[in-house]
Amino acid sequence: VVLPRNTEEVAAVISLAQQEGIPVVPRGAGTGVAGGAVPVSGGIVLDLSAMARIVRIDPDELMAVVEPGVVWAELNRALDSHRLFAPSVPGSGRVSTVGGAVATGGSGMRSLKYGTVREQVRRLVAVLPDGQTVGLGELAPKSACGYSLKDLFVGSEGTLGVITEVALRVWPKPPATLLVEAELRRLEEAPAILHRLRQEGLVPSAFELIPLATLQAVGESLEGGEGRLLTEFQGSPAEVEGAEATILPLLANRRTQVWRTEPEQARRWQRYGEIYFRLVRLKPAPLAEDLGVPVGAVPRLLDQAGRLSQALNLPAGLISHAGDGTVHCVIPADRRDPEEWRKAQHLREELYRLALELGGTITAEHGLGAVRSPFARRQLGPALDLMRRIKQALDPKCIMNPGKLRLEE
Amino acid sequence: VVLPRNTEEVAAVISLAQQEGIPVVPRGAGTGVAGGAVPVSGGIVLDLSAMARIVRIDPDELMAVVEPGVVWAELNRALDSHRLFAPSVPGSGRVSTVGGAVATGGSGMRSLKYGTVREQVRRLVAVLPDGQTVGLGELAPKSACGYSLKDLFVGSEGTLGVITEVALRVWPKPPATLLVEAELRRLEEAPAILHRLRQEGLVPSAFELIPLATLQAVGESLEGGEGRLLTEFQGSPAEVEGAEATILPLLANRRTQVWRTEPEQARRWQRYGEIYFRLVRLKPAPLAEDLGVPVGAVPRLLDQAGRLSQALNLPAGLISHAGDGTVHCVIPADRRDPEEWRKAQHLREELYRLALELGGTITAEHGLGAVRSPFARRQLGPALDLMRRIKQALDPKCIMNPGKLRLEE
Repeated sequence: VVLPRNTEEVAAVISLAQQEGIPVVPRGAGTGVAGGAVPVSGGIVLDLSAMARIVRIDPDELMAVVEPGVVWAELNRALDSHRLFAPSVPGSGRVSTVGGAVATGGSGMRSLKYGTVREQVRRLVAVLPDGQTVGLGELAPKSACGYSLKDLFVGSEGTLGVITEVALRVWPKPPATLLVEAELRRLEEAPAILHRLRQEGLVPSAFELIPLATLQAVGESLEGGEGRLLTEFQGSPAEVEGAEATILPLLANRRTQVWRTEPEQARRWQRYGEIYFRLVRLKPAPLAEDLGVPVGAVPRLLDQAGRLSQALNLPAGLISHAGDGTVHCVIPADRRDPEEWRKAQHLREELYRLALELGGTITAEHGLGAVRSPFARRQLGPALDLMRRIKQALDPKCIMNPGKLRLEE
Repeated sequence: VVLPRNTEEVAAVISLAQQEGIPVVPRGAGTGVAGGAVPVSGGIVLDLSAMARIVRIDPDELMAVVEPGVVWAELNRALDSHRLFAPSVPGSGRVSTVGGAVATGGSGMRSLKYGTVREQVRRLVAVLPDGQTVGLGELAPKSACGYSLKDLFVGSEGTLGVITEVALRVWPKPPATLLVEAELRRLEEAPAILHRLRQEGLVPSAFELIPLATLQAVGESLEGGEGRLLTEFQGSPAEVEGAEATILPLLANRRTQVWRTEPEQARRWQRYGEIYFRLVRLKPAPLAEDLGVPVGAVPRLLDQAGRLSQALNLPAGLISHAGDGTVHCVIPADRRDPEEWRKAQHLREELYRLALELGGTITAEHGLGAVRSPFARRQLGPALDLMRRIKQALDPKCIMNPGKLRLEE
């Protein structure tokens, strides 16, 4: 395990590893759930947690330049004193790093309004497998100067080099926010409500759906509906007031609750965030899946995932960023029980099949890492060969994070 | 010149070209200003204008699937009957194609609110240099499944393959729009006004700045200010009303005009759009530059570009998407006058130097093509070598659009 302090030290480590043919596995906070930071082929774990400097916050340009080891929550604390914030934080943002999310192509529930982390990245500094340091992208908001290598490196999971600096777009803190909670009689109502909001010119900053069975698994309940919807709006006071006047009639005759102050909203979101962490703690080795499908297919995926898990007697926890098509599915499993483990694997594969049938993805936010890579071909088809050719061109000795994304065979 | 009718025909042409080592130059409407579609090394011009089918419009998923030869204006006409629109249309959208903008990484003034064309593309179908057809990306809004090859192909200017189908995000037509025109005493006021709007939670859908000298060059004038600002808002009625109540006090004591109805706004934008076309017609061979800089640097770039062009007695026309840092600079030139041509080249290089000094890009929207490729190294440095390695890996015989992006040497 090597803890570099700056880009130069990263370059020195990579140069040595290249020379000696040693695998290098970059690691942020180690919170990934796909094993992307696990050194499955041995070698050097490049722990970037000591590169955690906020290099610069530029309030006029709405930009923050940070080292990869900066934890999202720390970045947001620093931005807060400028009345700014980074909106597209992953659900793990209390502990996970900016570099980790950039490397995995991660993002969180607010990407619905603000875009994914990929779309926030303006420029990266990266150390290539040959030890050379390059800048990728520009500080200007738009550029059309050759291949967008910045976009190639975002989501490359450490297989093309090590990201050592990130310039991110950030936002002024919204002057108004609103959180509306509602019990939906049917899950299918969710995409229809979103569609109506969008037709009225409104884009929620979050649009979260949890089915009844998952609520019950963590000790919550509903009066009689199929799921709970949390819709958040952020923006100008007029926009948010208008959003309230639009959404409440759409939710007429449903149990609703409106949270108007920031402390109330923060408490509500915290309670929401805990559901996921309670789900992953139900069993010692849960599978934390993050399927993505077209928005209209979310209710069907939730429904089918629920049925499949019931049929297998494996109560899967389901939480959906229903506005951007992401469905988190926590499959409870105990690896010491071979039958349960086999059933969990089977359920996972069924979910992948379903997501792909619906035009979706086996991973919307977490990345392929080590655990999902065996399934990459199903989704990518011949595009996987294209990835391999790029990998081969940039890292011919395959020292960077081998065993991930199925790039070597 | 070959006019394929579908992906299969494109694949047949590419396979033959690969076998025979013949260059292939994809071409949309031929409206690019960087020579990207010019067959500088001879070979086959693959004219995609006959592949102009709108495959599918999905109002529920807010998505349109189109062939590359579809002209933006035609797409928007088709979307209009579903009360949808494609917002990030390039300024040339009346005549330019979706495939052209995707291939060059182009976009227009409304990317400030809606994102660039790159951010609209969900999935591409492409024919690779070896004749194989691949799908890149997913119909789900988010995915983290391996390298984002979709993003590598967007902006690759036909050097990696031929895009034969594009799945694009589209938007519901906004129920409210507002266009506010103002005379600014000083160009520097523009970023400050934008910043204030953003602090109030408002993101304009367009934020355009034209300096006085350019207005004068096309026969317009100002009462005494340095430039004219056009700010557009689109969204819910409450948001847009609130935006008006916010921006008008920010513009107090300046000459302003407010356009509230769609026909008025359309007429105003048409008059604005004509400025560019009048500028490019002032001389037979103008250079159409499109620099990009951080937003706060736009006034400085406009000011310096004006001074430089005055000093050379070459009245450059300047139009800025000031909200996203893009500065279009039309340098009037007549190639038959060697002295004027030399001065125009000199001015261009000075502008590139300035944009790069300011942390920007030599091309924000148009791409490198043939004419800007000699300057690629200045901006990209060692990243250009990385692009070359990718090019070499995907197109070893270099049949795809040779002579573009300086990828061959």
